[in-house]
Amino acid sequence: MDDDFLFMTLLYDFYGALLTDKQREIFEMYYLNDYSLGEISELLDISRQGVYDTLKRAESSLEFFEEKLGLVKRHQEIMNKLDKIKKGIEIIRERERDPEILKIIEEIAREIEELNP
Amino acid sequence: MDDDFLFMTLLYDFYGALLTDKQREIFEMYYLNDYSLGEISELLDISRQGVYDTLKRAESSLEFFEEKLGLVKRHQEIMNKLDKIKKGIEIIRERERDPEILKIIEEIAREIEELNP
Repeated sequence: MDDDFLFMTLLYDFYGALLTDKQREIFEMYYLNDYSLGEISELLDISRQGVYDTLKRAESSLEFFEEKLGLVKRHQEIMNKLDKIKKGIEIIRERERDPEILKIIEEIAREIEELNP
Repeated sequence: MDDDFLFMTLLYDFYGALLTDKQREIFEMYYLNDYSLGEISELLDISRQGVYDTLKRAESSLEFFEEKLGLVKRHQEIMNKLDKIKKGIEIIRERERDPEILKIIEEIAREIEELNP
């Protein structure tokens, strides 16, 4: 799966609820369930061009929302920082001997774990 | 400032870019610059009712986006967890004696600080 593909599914995760039902249906078939345009065309009884156009409109909308709101970018920055924090916590967990501190470290590790789905 | 007021400014921070220019202008005058409806009405030469209606439409749109996307809620959950992590880090910072671990703790504290604007 290439980066553009992954990024599009991330945009969908954030903004998908603002698409039309038809756009969501086709987007999910193509991006999440790995159907080809031809297969979607057959299954939904729409022309291949129609499937393609709907998919492109869905993609454009998702890109428009990110351009306007930038919430995926903001979220990714937070997640990158959390990843750095997680790595630091792992190092401390291996090295630390004070049981009180270790207890806090375990709690922090659990909090971070819950944030990474 | 009450909670509803604060929450509305948070919604605006996330979704404000999707409002119309006029909605943004009036929203900012009312919520961010603390003008009254009457003052906005005079300054923009619009009826007080017109100001009120635009403001209500802006608020409804922001609430609609949150209802659909829930990104503010998601963000707040992350921030709550970060707050817990931050408190744990503070306790460790006071108690820890190992200089290597303290260095990592300082780095983590800095990463968290950068996340809280």
